[in-house]
This record gives sequence, structure tokens and C-alpha cells, in this order.
Amino acid sequence: MELTKRQAVILDIVKREGPITGEQIADRLSLTRATLRPDMAILTMSGLLEARPRVGYYHSGKNPSRILMDKLHSIKVGDVKSVPIVVTEKCSVYDAAVTMFIEDVGTLIVVREGGFLEGVLSRKDLLKITLGGHDIYKLPVGVIMTRMPNVVTVETEESVWSAAKKLITHEVDALPVVRVSDDNSGVEVVGRLSKTNITRLFVELGES
Amino acid sequence: MELTKRQAVILDIVKREGPITGEQIADRLSLTRATLRPDMAILTMSGLLEARPRVGYYHSGKNPSRILMDKLHSIKVGDVKSVPIVVTEKCSVYDAAVTMFIEDVGTLIVVREGGFLEGVLSRKDLLKITLGGHDIYKLPVGVIMTRMPNVVTVETEESVWSAAKKLITHEVDALPVVRVSDDNSGVEVVGRLSKTNITRLFVELGES
Repeated sequence: MELTKRQAVILDIVKREGPITGEQIADRLSLTRATLRPDMAILTMSGLLEARPRVGYYHSGKNPSRILMDKLHSIKVGDVKSVPIVVTEKCSVYDAAVTMFIEDVGTLIVVREGGFLEGVLSRKDLLKITLGGHDIYKLPVGVIMTRMPNVVTVETEESVWSAAKKLITHEVDALPVVRVSDDNSGVEVVGRLSKTNITRLFVELGES
Repeated sequence: MELTKRQAVILDIVKREGPITGEQIADRLSLTRATLRPDMAILTMSGLLEARPRVGYYHSGKNPSRILMDKLHSIKVGDVKSVPIVVTEKCSVYDAAVTMFIEDVGTLIVVREGGFLEGVLSRKDLLKITLGGHDIYKLPVGVIMTRMPNVVTVETEESVWSAAKKLITHEVDALPVVRVSDDNSGVEVVGRLSKTNITRLFVELGES
């Protein structure tokens, strides 16, 4: 939303002097209240100013980026998540790497029978181990993966914003999307959320 | 921006019947034009409706998410880029992998003297080669990197949105940020823009 010059001046007056009445604002600008009415309506409707009877107008503290914030927080992990690519902990490092290439993902999720989360394995974990001269055909991923409860997870109903914050804070490329099973016997994997999902969402939000 | 019920009704009328005059809209709602004036002002100022003399009001095709779009397109690569982590093409695959771990990045940029772009090298490229049983202490990165002119790049003045679109379209994790040198002798590397930068920006945009 673009403010006109007059609206910007009004906003500035209210920021400095608010609470201030419509009468006083009109005085400052040597205009009538009637002339200002559409401007005041726009400024209050847009949430930039708030009005209280017998007090006057005051600055809401909100700004245009508030609209953006609200939007970003309203999108859920469930709206953007991808399918999880899983292996078991007995899978060899070599087979895990092959799976990573075939599926073209940067993170594998390690599960036990029933799809319950055991750990995660990143491209970085695999590269570290292949550099180390280990027998990658025999070494199982269970030895090198990040194991529960040290895995950072996210739930379907969480906001994508919260997931993005976890990706940055914990310095990981992807999070398993999980659901705690009804009988509390484990954490069930239902998806995967990566920096790629965030980047794709960013592109979609900016598309017309 | 929240519309009032009356404004939503007006928007709906103009969407269906526009171009339509203020007189006709007032008729439909059995109200005077004067009563509608603040509403019409809000709807046109916010960019939802446009008005043309002797034609009337019509729907601009913009919607509230336009505000979000404009914001996303206004942020430049230069505002969020990171420093480039570079190696030369003679660097061994092993040394490149070590650099990647020490600097904790997923993409290395390969440059020649003067900081001119020669290629890029991803964690995926390195993992593929370490799985292949090559002599990674001797093999130079020049053999396995993606070489110019096949490298997708971005410039400082480009929008982050455009960079994000390149990341998704070309399925890469990071782009070298470049500047074409004045004498056209090469493409100078001035930064790095990755999915991590996009994710971090996403977090910042949603913060109060």
C-alpha cells in the first residue's frame, strides 16, 4: 500500500503528537476535517493509526510489514512439506548415499518398522565418513546418524516460519515432519521440510 | 488490511460488473455517493480498485497479497548475500572437502587469479567422487566442478526473489554473486547466495 504525501504527513504528525484529535490534525494542515476524512479512514482502516472516542488518533505501532508477518505465520508445515525419503539403521553408508542420489535429497530420515523416527543422516554426514577411509559397504548408517532424542523435528500444524527458524537455529538443512503416535509409543514420520521447501514457498509468494 | 463488510460488497460488485460508475454502485446499495466516498477512497488507495474518468471503477486485479509480492521483490541480493568461500581449480578434492567442513558451507566457488569465476563445486559433487574410489588427494577439483559458462550466477542488484527462482529452477543450493568486470575480461565473484540466505531472510521477515 502506497501512502499519498498528505497521508504520510498525517502519519508523521500522529506519531510525534498522538493521541491527537482530527480537529487538531486539520488545524496543523490548514484543512477542514471533511477534507481529511478519506485520508483518516485509509490510515485507520489499514491499521497504521488507531482511533479512540474522546481521545483521538494514535499510532498503532503496526507498519506495512505487519501484513507480511501475519501472512508468513499463517502458512503451515503441512501446506508445503515433501514426502520423507527413509532408510533403516542397518542400511550401509554406501546404500544410503546411493538412495540420496537416486531420490536427489540432501537428508535421509532413518526409521524403524512402523515408520517411527530413529535418526537423520545428512549429505554432510556421508561426506565426512567417505573421506575417512571407512568400509562404507559394511558400515551401517546407525553408527553415523544423528540419533533421537537429538533430532530436531517439526509438526504438521506448526507454522512454516517456526520450521524455518529451527532450520537456521540448529544449522540443519531439513527437518523430519512428525506426529506423536496415539499410544505414545514413538514419533511417526509423515514428511520432510527442507530449505528447498522454504525457498520454493518464497518464490511462490512472490509470484503473481 | 481488513476490509469492512461494505467494502467487501463494493469490491464484489466491481469485480462482477466493472467498469461501473460510483453512481451505479450507490444505486445497487441504496446509499448516497457521499456515504460511499470514504469506502471508494480506501479501495482505490489500497490499489484494489482503479478509477478512470468517464469510465468508472474497475478491479485492478491486485489483491492483498500484492503487498507481500512487492516487498519480496524489493529486497536485493546485495542485502542478504554471504562472503564467497573460494578455491582454485588445482586444489585437490580432499582439500576442497576439508575447506567445506572448516567453513561449513555446501558450495565452494572456484576462481582464478583476480577472483574471476571458473566454476562451482557442491557437496553433492564431492560425495559422488568420494564414493567412486578415486584418488581424492591427487584429483583436482577442476576435473569435477561445474564449469563456466554452465554456472548459474546472480548479480548484487538483482532481487532475492529472482535469485530464489534460479535456485529452484536450476536445482542448485547456492549461486555465486558476480559483477562483470569493466573491461569485460571476466566475471568477478563478490558473494554467495544460498538457500540458507533465503531461509534466514524468511525468518527475519516474520520477526516483529
